Amino acid sequence: MAGSTFGTLFKITTWGESHGKALGVVIDGAPAGLPLDEQDIQSFLDRRKPGQSRIATPRKESDLVQILSGIFDGKTTGTPISLLVPNTSQKSSDYGEIASYYRPGHADYTFDAKYGFRDYRGGGRSSGRETIGRVAAGAVASKILGRMGIALTAYTRSIGPIEADLSHFDRSAILSTPTCMPDPAADELACAYLKECMTEKDSSGGVVECIISGMPAGVGDPVFEKLDANLSKAIMSIGAVKAVEIGDGLRAAAAKGSENNDAFHMEDEKIVKKTNHSGGILGGISDGSPILLRAFFKPTPSIFRKQETVNKAGENITVEIKGRHDPVIVPRAVVVVESMAALAVLDACMINMSSRLEYLTDFYSQKK
Amino acid sequence: MAGSTFGTLFKITTWGESHGKALGVVIDGAPAGLPLDEQDIQSFLDRRKPGQSRIATPRKESDLVQILSGIFDGKTTGTPISLLVPNTSQKSSDYGEIASYYRPGHADYTFDAKYGFRDYRGGGRSSGRETIGRVAAGAVASKILGRMGIALTAYTRSIGPIEADLSHFDRSAILSTPTCMPDPAADELACAYLKECMTEKDSSGGVVECIISGMPAGVGDPVFEKLDANLSKAIMSIGAVKAVEIGDGLRAAAAKGSENNDAFHMEDEKIVKKTNHSGGILGGISDGSPILLRAFFKPTPSIFRKQETVNKAGENITVEIKGRHDPVIVPRAVVVVESMAALAVLDACMINMSSRLEYLTDFYSQKK
Amino acid sequence: MAGSTFGTLFKITTWGESHGKALGVVIDGAPAGLPLDEQDIQSFLDRRKPGQSRIATPRKESDLVQILSGIFDGKTTGTPISLLVPNTSQKSSDYGEIASYYRPGHADYTFDAKYGFRDYRGGGRSSGRETIGRVAAGAVASKILGRMGIALTAYTRSIGPIEADLSHFDRSAILSTPTCMPDPAADELACAYLKECMTEKDSSGGVVECIISGMPAGVGDPVFEKLDANLSKAIMSIGAVKAVEIGDGLRAAAAKGSENNDAFHMEDEKIVKKTNHSGGILGGISDGSPILLRAFFKPTPSIFRKQETVNKAGENITVEIKGRHDPVIVPRAVVVVESMAALAVLDACMINMSSRLEYLTDFYSQKK
Amino acid sequence: MAGSTFGTLFKITTWGESHGKALGVVIDGAPAGLPLDEQDIQSFLDRRKPGQSRIATPRKESDLVQILSGIFDGKTTGTPISLLVPNTSQKSSDYGEIASYYRPGHADYTFDAKYGFRDYRGGGRSSGRETIGRVAAGAVASKILGRMGIALTAYTRSIGPIEADLSHFDRSAILSTPTCMPDPAADELACAYLKECMTEKDSSGGVVECIISGMPAGVGDPVFEKLDANLSKAIMSIGAVKAVEIGDGLRAAAAKGSENNDAFHMEDEKIVKKTNHSGGILGGISDGSPILLRAFFKPTPSIFRKQETVNKAGENITVEIKGRHDPVIVPRAVVVVESMAALAVLDACMINMSSRLEYLTDFYSQKK
Repeated sequence: MAGSTFGTLFKITTWGESHGKALGVVIDGAPAGLPLDEQDIQSFLDRRKPGQSRIATPRKESDLVQILSGIFDGKTTGTPISLLVPNTSQKSSDYGEIASYYRPGHADYTFDAKYGFRDYRGGGRSSGRETIGRVAAGAVASKILGRMGIALTAYTRSIGPIEADLSHFDRSAILSTPTCMPDPAADELACAYLKECMTEKDSSGGVVECIISGMPAGVGDPVFEKLDANLSKAIMSIGAVKAVEIGDGLRAAAAKGSENNDAFHMEDEKIVKKTNHSGGILGGISDGSPILLRAFFKPTPSIFRKQETVNKAGENITVEIKGRHDPVIVPRAVVVVESMAALAVLDACMINMSSRLEYLTDFYSQKK
Repeated sequence: MAGSTFGTLFKITTWGESHGKALGVVIDGAPAGLPLDEQDIQSFLDRRKPGQSRIATPRKESDLVQILSGIFDGKTTGTPISLLVPNTSQKSSDYGEIASYYRPGHADYTFDAKYGFRDYRGGGRSSGRETIGRVAAGAVASKILGRMGIALTAYTRSIGPIEADLSHFDRSAILSTPTCMPDPAADELACAYLKECMTEKDSSGGVVECIISGMPAGVGDPVFEKLDANLSKAIMSIGAVKAVEIGDGLRAAAAKGSENNDAFHMEDEKIVKKTNHSGGILGGISDGSPILLRAFFKPTPSIFRKQETVNKAGENITVEIKGRHDPVIVPRAVVVVESMAALAVLDACMINMSSRLEYLTDFYSQKK
Repeated sequence: MAGSTFGTLFKITTWGESHGKALGVVIDGAPAGLPLDEQDIQSFLDRRKPGQSRIATPRKESDLVQILSGIFDGKTTGTPISLLVPNTSQKSSDYGEIASYYRPGHADYTFDAKYGFRDYRGGGRSSGRETIGRVAAGAVASKILGRMGIALTAYTRSIGPIEADLSHFDRSAILSTPTCMPDPAADELACAYLKECMTEKDSSGGVVECIISGMPAGVGDPVFEKLDANLSKAIMSIGAVKAVEIGDGLRAAAAKGSENNDAFHMEDEKIVKKTNHSGGILGGISDGSPILLRAFFKPTPSIFRKQETVNKAGENITVEIKGRHDPVIVPRAVVVVESMAALAVLDACMINMSSRLEYLTDFYSQKK
Repeated sequence: MAGSTFGTLFKITTWGESHGKALGVVIDGAPAGLPLDEQDIQSFLDRRKPGQSRIATPRKESDLVQILSGIFDGKTTGTPISLLVPNTSQKSSDYGEIASYYRPGHADYTFDAKYGFRDYRGGGRSSGRETIGRVAAGAVASKILGRMGIALTAYTRSIGPIEADLSHFDRSAILSTPTCMPDPAADELACAYLKECMTEKDSSGGVVECIISGMPAGVGDPVFEKLDANLSKAIMSIGAVKAVEIGDGLRAAAAKGSENNDAFHMEDEKIVKKTNHSGGILGGISDGSPILLRAFFKPTPSIFRKQETVNKAGENITVEIKGRHDPVIVPRAVVVVESMAALAVLDACMINMSSRLEYLTDFYSQKK
């Protein structure tokens, strides 16, 4: 069905394949009056680049965004913002081989099972390039949230067995290290581990963590539209994510109530929590503490070892995948996680504005 | 907003509070022609009961479902099925105390922050009784899936540190043990652990696992409506769930590609996978292997120890929660996980029917 | 599919058949803090009654609403409001005959064509009784709109060839005349016309008009979610409606631009329009003038004349429908039109609150 | 909010302003396997042109569509189809004057009331050019419906007081006459009437009629998602439409039941209706007869007479609008009506595929 749309009031629709003419997104429901230009979006897209090109200077002129609609006099008009990124650097390689069989760990087989055939060039719609639209929209959502005092910070928490030590959190390292870890020492270890993986013609999984600070209490809805439920959908919809945690996440399942409950207390006449095992959400509604989530990514499925699989003729075969493939998805996915979280949070904030009668009566009495 | 509705074509809307007159669900979009009576639904609701009452005979006559609409001549008519469960056994206890403060780990504070006040009796809408509507609808979805050859099995995988050993999987134990573990030996250990928790006025978290077998390949949608994304939302929307895994889940993040990729091969002229690290979903679309998911539940927040919190007057206080509270949520949540998974999978199956032009042309040429 | 849900933020789901156990509605997304009791809803439901019972005293105790959830301390809590009306007065007549053939002008054939069979008792889900849920929800929406200064007034504009003369608009007559016309003289003529129809074993169509006053300018969205588009869907979804007009409606199609354009001018430092051909909506957004719409109802299809039709065996037959059937639908539909208009307008008002960045920043800066 | 998306399973999202860089649409949910190229879409877009350019040869190279995604090997892949039309011919005229005041009959004032400011160039998002996306998507929907045996025919029924006589229906005249009337004689009269309007610096309204043939019985849903309700929303969402009729429409309101009911009878072992007052829909579900609808368009609001209005400074002023404006919207709107009807009908057909249990079990038993 129409699976390329996300959100209720802040709604985005992405389109485009790895090797088509372009990729893009339509953002519908952005509030009017936000100053916005290409650079706001480009700075997010640049974070999607591979480690070397992201930090290299001068950067390669690729994945350049164009704003096609929705902006006038430098500000959003409230009407759809159409963003487009031409596919300039995709080489028309020989995909004849890939076309004929199903790569393990990829969506080749499932797309064929669903649609009867597929655009096999570079993975088509199931390529990681599909996230360009998410990130472009995430840039807009993040800028709006910033105006509301809400900030998102995502980074690589671990790669394979190497975990960042957050006790010396180095914010600048997120954008400057190849792994996007906030811990240069762990980054070095992770780089060494990845080199090892490459030598072994193998790849690695990893974890992205995201913190959302400045969240007011009271955002999100009970039952099915819980803020954590929508965040989970947002994060799990990113290709290669296999698990999502909020707050203590899976550790909560092994904990006791006395360890997991967060005590409320008064601080500067405000209600705060002494700990944040909940990850900033109770009963699906933000509790005023920072929201904390984690996305678990599987290893890059394209590895250069011999692998068993079947071809379209229904024969068991052995294949060796060629081409250039990152040994880990995680560093490039950091900004994708941050973007998806921004989209889910902004939508919840917009929806929340009509949750009390007094909000409606105050709003409309001011209008008259 | 309208957070009590789930699904696109198979859509359910739940309602009701812990201590209101009744709880219920409206199922809209159930296909016509399914034989359905109260017993089909009651057998699911009975699985929501506490361990002793679930297996005791004769069972306590509580949480009895009534079908109010949508059935004629014993079959679904295609119009909304309204199911209602009267709240007979909820005692009008003295909730004056709870009304005045915010229980740690509960949604008391966040409901007040959002709505300005709350129905504090038994947790109101944030009570575990809210799941009655989910389970009643899940019974209907499961019966439909059964006709399609798709079966769901959920059980307790672990409680606190005690994990079921699936190498001697005992299906009958799921319904007969107090913990709903498919492993009577682990069940005994878990019961002992829970007794210890109670002695310490504490509670425990745990893990529910769900297997969906008989899934055809090709169900689910790319990008935002991925089958795993919708399953994650479905599961994470259950109160107390803090993490969700598909397939290898978080272990995938620590794995290498050569360990995580599943080899395809031919078996009886069908494409199958030699392993199932993916948990039955690739690129958001079912791959024909069983779907495997895990829900991580936090410990029951109602514990009998002294806890610090704040009251509505903005004072720091110490409280001791009274009443009857399970030391673990997990066994009663098993059928809730199974129900939510059924709802997400059935909706995806219905949506999938128009994914190819030939499906449309075949369908409508037969109608003429 | 799930066709029984209406609205985005203020969302209602209706259920129930003519001769089932009960009918009802779940209202999800009502803002918290609205004082609400059964009488608020009952007064709307009473307007659905046939002319004589509506104005007779003491009224027949039928279609009594029960509030099952969503209210605490006399106010809405922000969680789903479940309303139920038991089907007490539906006689279990002999429907064996109706079951076997397709009544002209009814949905008997189309339900069978879609679902394979149908609940034939009293029309099942396609009965006019389906509107009970709409009206119960409309009562809640109207009360909220009232707090916002927005008022709806619907009445019978015409029955067959008899049209109410609005130059002596008598508001009290809407509730007191059998036809719900705001013109007692026209009411008398219409009653005589209807008597004639009954003598001829025939029925009549008619028109309901609805005025929405107090609308602030700026509500509604461009393109597909235009306020008039959603009002049209709301009205056309009422059984028996065959046309909808906004403002001058079909007369606009015969007019010239100089006749149809409304001049803006300043009045008391506010922008107003000198005329209201637009019916209060320009470009899908409210323009501050009253919204004016008209619903055109076909005649009651159940007439007592001999009619040709086919039976389920595929034979051409002649039938004579029996039972009690109103010769006109319109007077009882007045409150249905008003209710559906209220639902569409309230939803648009709630959605509109996030249309500007400053609304978001002001709202959330006040929360912190 | 996100008002630029239409449809549930066949979902479209349009974007673009009159004088922006481009306009376009993303079609999500198109079934895989449909042969599709630019010419399929261009032929629809060409019907949006003004009368002379539409029939002139060689045609002016304007509004040329580009397919950016969703097609592989000449066929739809099931993933989003992104269509873009560059805004090449929009002159950057001097809009300084329009920017300062509110044109009567336009959405200038309501956009400002909603968003605080607007893109005033050529009407921005409220321009008729917004329909480019609708028509491009309508071309795809129509081609799919054609494969299913469903055909749509729209034409101008009347312009001002001049009505086409359908007793000599000339199909070829729809595409070849300047007015798109299927009656060359009426076309001549209408052209003369329009010339008169222009001389008087005035404009005219008119009516578009659309017939949908080949509709199977049983499509559409009861209650809120009635096929006629969705068609009404689709049509009323077109700018300048002020009324919608299905079948006899407003005439049904003046009729008697004996005149309005359609008798069923058997013909070639199929159930058909002797008349079609219902316009092919009963109870919101298609009845197998052709669907008939009418859209009533107001006159072009841009007229060259002096008009009273207010400016942004809040002063009463007199204005004379300049530029090139059609004296009637209707001929160019014919293909827009046809497109919107196609979108609504196709979505209903796709949704309908899961309405019976046997459809689901048959579908999935074939898949295994």
